[in-house]
Amino acid sequence: MKILLKIRYDGTDFCGYAVQPNKRTVQGTLNQAARLLCGTECNITGCSRTDSGVHALCYYCTLEPTDGSQINIPLKNIPVALNAVLPKDLAVLDAFCVEDGFHARYDVLSKEYTYFIYNSQIKDPFFSNRALQLQKLLDRDSIEEMNKAAGYLCGTYDFKCFMAQNSSVTNTTRTVYYARFEQNGEKIIFKICADGFLYNMVRIIVGTMLEVGYKKKQPSDILRIIDSGQRKNAGQTAPPQGLYLSAVNYERSLNIH
Amino acid sequence: MKILLKIRYDGTDFCGYAVQPNKRTVQGTLNQAARLLCGTECNITGCSRTDSGVHALCYYCTLEPTDGSQINIPLKNIPVALNAVLPKDLAVLDAFCVEDGFHARYDVLSKEYTYFIYNSQIKDPFFSNRALQLQKLLDRDSIEEMNKAAGYLCGTYDFKCFMAQNSSVTNTTRTVYYARFEQNGEKIIFKICADGFLYNMVRIIVGTMLEVGYKKKQPSDILRIIDSGQRKNAGQTAPPQGLYLSAVNYERSLNIH
Repeated sequence: MKILLKIRYDGTDFCGYAVQPNKRTVQGTLNQAARLLCGTECNITGCSRTDSGVHALCYYCTLEPTDGSQINIPLKNIPVALNAVLPKDLAVLDAFCVEDGFHARYDVLSKEYTYFIYNSQIKDPFFSNRALQLQKLLDRDSIEEMNKAAGYLCGTYDFKCFMAQNSSVTNTTRTVYYARFEQNGEKIIFKICADGFLYNMVRIIVGTMLEVGYKKKQPSDILRIIDSGQRKNAGQTAPPQGLYLSAVNYERSLNIH
Repeated sequence: MKILLKIRYDGTDFCGYAVQPNKRTVQGTLNQAARLLCGTECNITGCSRTDSGVHALCYYCTLEPTDGSQINIPLKNIPVALNAVLPKDLAVLDAFCVEDGFHARYDVLSKEYTYFIYNSQIKDPFFSNRALQLQKLLDRDSIEEMNKAAGYLCGTYDFKCFMAQNSSVTNTTRTVYYARFEQNGEKIIFKICADGFLYNMVRIIVGTMLEVGYKKKQPSDILRIIDSGQRKNAGQTAPPQGLYLSAVNYERSLNIH
C-alpha cells in the first residue's frame, strides 16, 4: 500500500511543484517533511506539474519510503503530523491508502483548473498574488462572447496552438470536457476541465479568451486558431498568479473520494 | 488644501504603518512614492498606527509637500499615478481634497476593526497570513457566549486592562460603540467600533473573548477584568494576521465620503 496525500498550496513563494536544485519547490518541501515524519527518504509522486506562482486548491501526490519500508503512523494522524512540520503556505488536507499499482499522475481521469480574474478599476493588494487584476472592465456582453469562444474548446482536438513553444510533448491532442466563464461583480472565474493539459495551456487559453473579451478577436477565430496549430495565432500567456489547480478526478474504483 | 488618500494594504510584509529606519513600512513606502510623484519630499500623516502583519481594508492619510508647494496633478489621476509606483501589497483606492486644518488622526470620529478567524480542523494555506486559524471548533453556543462577553465592552469605560503593558498612554478611557462576533461556517468575524483604541486593544480583546468561547472564562468575567484595570487578568494577545482596520469615520462636515 501507498499513502496518497491530498494537499493545498499557495504557489506565490514556490518555484513550482517539481523539485529543482537550490529552489524552494512544493515537492522538495514535501520531501523534507516526509523525511522528518518517516525517518527515511521518501518518493513523492505528484498528479501534475504546476509552474512558479501557480496555486493548488486540490492536488494529489503519493508518498512511499524509497527503502520499501512501511509508514507506521495511523492514516488519520498523517495530515496533522505532516502539517506540524510543513510551512504555512502548504497544507495536507487528507490522507488515503491506495494500492501499490496506483500512480498519482497516470491514473488521473480528468483535472479542473480555475483562473481567477479580479476586474476592477481599483487595485486591490489582497488579490495581487491570487488573481489577474484587469482594470479595463469586461461587461456582460464580453463575458458572453468569451463563453462562445470557450464553447469551441469543448471536445477532442489537437491543442498544439495553446502549448508553450519550449515544450517537447508530441501528442498534443486532448479532450476538454467543459470551459466556462462566470462573472460575479468584480470577480470573473474561468473553469476548464480536460483529460490532460499541455504546457501553459490554460494560461494561453485565458490570454486568448481575453482578446475575445476585449474585441481583438471574434469567438469563431478560436476555430481557425486551433486548426492552424500555430502558437503565434493564439493570445498571450496569462500570468501564473490567477491559476489554481482546483480538482483532480480518479476512477471511482480507485476509492478516493 | 491637502490631499487625503484612502488606501488599502496587505500588512504581511510591512513592519507596520509607522516609518522606522531600515524597515519596510507603509508610511515609508508612501513617502517614496509621493516623492516620485511630486518631485519633492512630502509629509504623510496617517489616521492610526498598525502593527507589523496587521492589514488595512480602509486607511486614510494626508499628503502634503514639506516645502509648502501644491501638487499639480488632477485629483482624479492621483490614485492611478501613485499605484503605478507603489508595490503590489499597497494600493491607493481614492483621493480627496481637504481643508488645510484637517488632521487625518485627530479628526477621526470612530474606527472599526475586523478580526478574522478561520475555524477549521483543516489547515488552509490561503488564510495563513490573513486570519487566525483555530482548529478547535467553536459552536453556536460558544459564539453566543462570546457575544454576551462582547456586549459588556459597549459603552465608555477605562479599558486599561486591554492595553499592552509597554504603552505610555495615560488616558485609557474609550467609548466602544459596538462589538460583535458573526459565524458563517468556518469563518468567524469579529467587528468592533470605538472612538479610539489603546495599543493592542483589539487583539487583547479577541484573545480574551476566545477564552470565553473555550469556556475558560465566563462572559460576566469581562466586567471584573475591566474593573480591575489589570492587563494580567485579560487573555492573550491574538496574533496580528487576523486583524484588519476596516473603517475610519470622519465628521460629515469634513466632506469625505
